[in-house]
Amino acid sequence: MEALKERIIKDGKCLGEDVLKVDSFLNHQIDVALVRAIGEEFARIFAGQGVNKILTIEASGIPIAYATAAAMGNIPLVFAKKTAPSTMTDGFYSAEVRSFTKGTVSHVVVSEKYIGPEDKVLLIDDFLAHGEAAGGLLEICAKAGAECAGLGAVIEKKYQGGAERLRAKGLRVESLAVITSLKDGHIEFEQTR
Amino acid sequence: MEALKERIIKDGKCLGEDVLKVDSFLNHQIDVALVRAIGEEFARIFAGQGVNKILTIEASGIPIAYATAAAMGNIPLVFAKKTAPSTMTDGFYSAEVRSFTKGTVSHVVVSEKYIGPEDKVLLIDDFLAHGEAAGGLLEICAKAGAECAGLGAVIEKKYQGGAERLRAKGLRVESLAVITSLKDGHIEFEQTR
Repeated sequence: MEALKERIIKDGKCLGEDVLKVDSFLNHQIDVALVRAIGEEFARIFAGQGVNKILTIEASGIPIAYATAAAMGNIPLVFAKKTAPSTMTDGFYSAEVRSFTKGTVSHVVVSEKYIGPEDKVLLIDDFLAHGEAAGGLLEICAKAGAECAGLGAVIEKKYQGGAERLRAKGLRVESLAVITSLKDGHIEFEQTR
Repeated sequence: MEALKERIIKDGKCLGEDVLKVDSFLNHQIDVALVRAIGEEFARIFAGQGVNKILTIEASGIPIAYATAAAMGNIPLVFAKKTAPSTMTDGFYSAEVRSFTKGTVSHVVVSEKYIGPEDKVLLIDDFLAHGEAAGGLLEICAKAGAECAGLGAVIEKKYQGGAERLRAKGLRVESLAVITSLKDGHIEFEQTR
């Protein structure tokens, strides 16, 4: 997605070789027009697959998931929570998610009421790095008996291997900007898209 | 807002006298069409005030804040984070927020880069209870030298006193559904709106 890549080049900042900071437009301050265009692009890519629900993880996946759900005809959006809130009084599905950046393991949870065998779910997230977050969402879909139509990631850091790992599990992965290297503060994109 | 109140009556669940569970449409699963209408209502209420930025707290404020930012002409949306991420390498403003439900005190943070004296900020949140979260956002606006146009809350639990406390600080507070009691599992609305 050209507009996205241009924006990453203009406003993205490399923090070492592993972290790309895009908090001026994607995950702290949000450029609403860009995020809407991102949602429309995911809706176009995953059209005709019978997707009836969007699943993401709080917090930075939420604006993108909302824009995608809106572009797919106002289908419901569910966001997995990083801790089970006191109001989650019924059963829930959970999955472990490791964070390589923080060196932690957490659980993400989704209420049993909002995902089930009748659902065809599209996973949405801002970043695809090692694939841990998306892997957790995929596990929740499996536990719920829901079908998963694929993962839409805004920015993929290909060299961290997440897309490869998820595709090996049979998941369709579509990333709007694929980064092959952040070496020496230079953002290099895969040229095929 | 009638459509909202009807939905709360239809799908809201009382958990004791203090907690209203609306996770089927507002803060776990999201009804995108309803949230868009909520955003349009806030845009109507706060029109003509020169608002140029929306500020909320992760995570459940984000869809509503996004819808409001979109309805106000795609102005930027900033969400305060509950922990400073490793990528927040520049300065940030922070404020203490107490949670009465969880019995905890946390800090919310906003990067100095995304709020400043040039901003007229509209605060948006899903719930207004004791007013702690909104109070924290108001404090961040003050630290940043930004003007605050008011708070738009989707559901206010009036008997917990947050709106009164915030108005005493000079903040304009507009809630789309004002609840006066959750006693005996019955949701009672203020009748004046």
